[in-house]
Amino acid sequence: MGRRGGRRFSYGTRSTVKSPSSLEFLAEALRRLPGIGPKSAQRMAYHLMQHDRDGAALLGRALAQAVERIHHCALCNTFTEAEICETCSDPERDAELLCVVETPADQLMIEQTLTYKGLYFVLMGHLSPLDGIGPKDIHLDKLVNRAGDGIVTEVVLATNFTNEGEATAHYISETLKTRGLKVSRLARGVPVGGELEYVDAGTIARAMLDRRAT
Amino acid sequence: MGRRGGRRFSYGTRSTVKSPSSLEFLAEALRRLPGIGPKSAQRMAYHLMQHDRDGAALLGRALAQAVERIHHCALCNTFTEAEICETCSDPERDAELLCVVETPADQLMIEQTLTYKGLYFVLMGHLSPLDGIGPKDIHLDKLVNRAGDGIVTEVVLATNFTNEGEATAHYISETLKTRGLKVSRLARGVPVGGELEYVDAGTIARAMLDRRAT
Ligand SMILES: [Zn+2]
Ligand SMILES: [Zn+2]
Repeated sequence: MGRRGGRRFSYGTRSTVKSPSSLEFLAEALRRLPGIGPKSAQRMAYHLMQHDRDGAALLGRALAQAVERIHHCALCNTFTEAEICETCSDPERDAELLCVVETPADQLMIEQTLTYKGLYFVLMGHLSPLDGIGPKDIHLDKLVNRAGDGIVTEVVLATNFTNEGEATAHYISETLKTRGLKVSRLARGVPVGGELEYVDAGTIARAMLDRRAT
Repeated sequence: MGRRGGRRFSYGTRSTVKSPSSLEFLAEALRRLPGIGPKSAQRMAYHLMQHDRDGAALLGRALAQAVERIHHCALCNTFTEAEICETCSDPERDAELLCVVETPADQLMIEQTLTYKGLYFVLMGHLSPLDGIGPKDIHLDKLVNRAGDGIVTEVVLATNFTNEGEATAHYISETLKTRGLKVSRLARGVPVGGELEYVDAGTIARAMLDRRAT
């Protein structure tokens, strides 16, 4: 071929090649997943179309089914397909204890310690004024109603020991105590700044046993 | 509450709380996305159900639509919704030149240099014997047929300058040359070990102009 150093060339960002629209649509839709940028979304779209069409179809069905079937438990606010979730429906549970967690994953971690046999309330988040997440977004009215059912005698706050989690616990504690409820907090056996999901079950177990009144 | 240091407790990995099955199904299906582990998949599932059900529904539709509509161009092997893609159907293109790339993203990068007006063949991968990816997986028969149409006079190999890309270029070059075709390779203006997608357009433009016979 030899050098063509004398020839002029130009380049730019304009392109004449376009992705098929349904592939573009897929890449854009994949960006709705948390933490997925445009480059990752495009790679995922290519990967699925090239190597895993069965996976793409399966994921499509899973999304449609979850959107249709999943809603929040009328009592504890966690995800469920029923009106009342399995945990809230369990007659073996101690209905006098209500443990407040940020997420279903946190609830699962506490369950794994096998130290707690009460019921739960899942906030599905934490207060974060800077992000515009207020009491309504963590379903505080629902929690107040739930805790005030006349059966619950103690609310155990098991939000994360992060700044937001601590602030959320403080806010909930003040709200519930003015309504005459006994409120406790997991002991600080959980490392400060730690997120429950990543703490070992033994530490959480100790923190549960050492919970203190607030 | 006080200390309960004397009380025994036990913990383990068994749990009595289960995610609703359609949420579990969704988290498992999300793991079909490349680079997504169980923890990320669960977070994504929670995020979608909690904060972006519209996004979940949209992604579900996008996946179903892409699986239904996207297939490979009969000529260049890229993704398309038509029998023959827009690029291959463009009468303004120089049909004597055929540029071989690994992915549609690489083709897009070359297009953006505006230095090439020929046609393309998209391998949708590269040879990688250790991963069990052989000539059949990069559609070599289809490429041989395409390059041997009697109109193509030169095949420009623009696979990546990684080990796999170079090996792929070498293999294709040997295959096409035994069939009497003229084969060239992008000049080594592209950094050794570099992937086209991440190289600036100017470098690729120079490499295109300096392509050499192999
Ligand atoms: Zn419930
Ligand atoms: Zn084509």
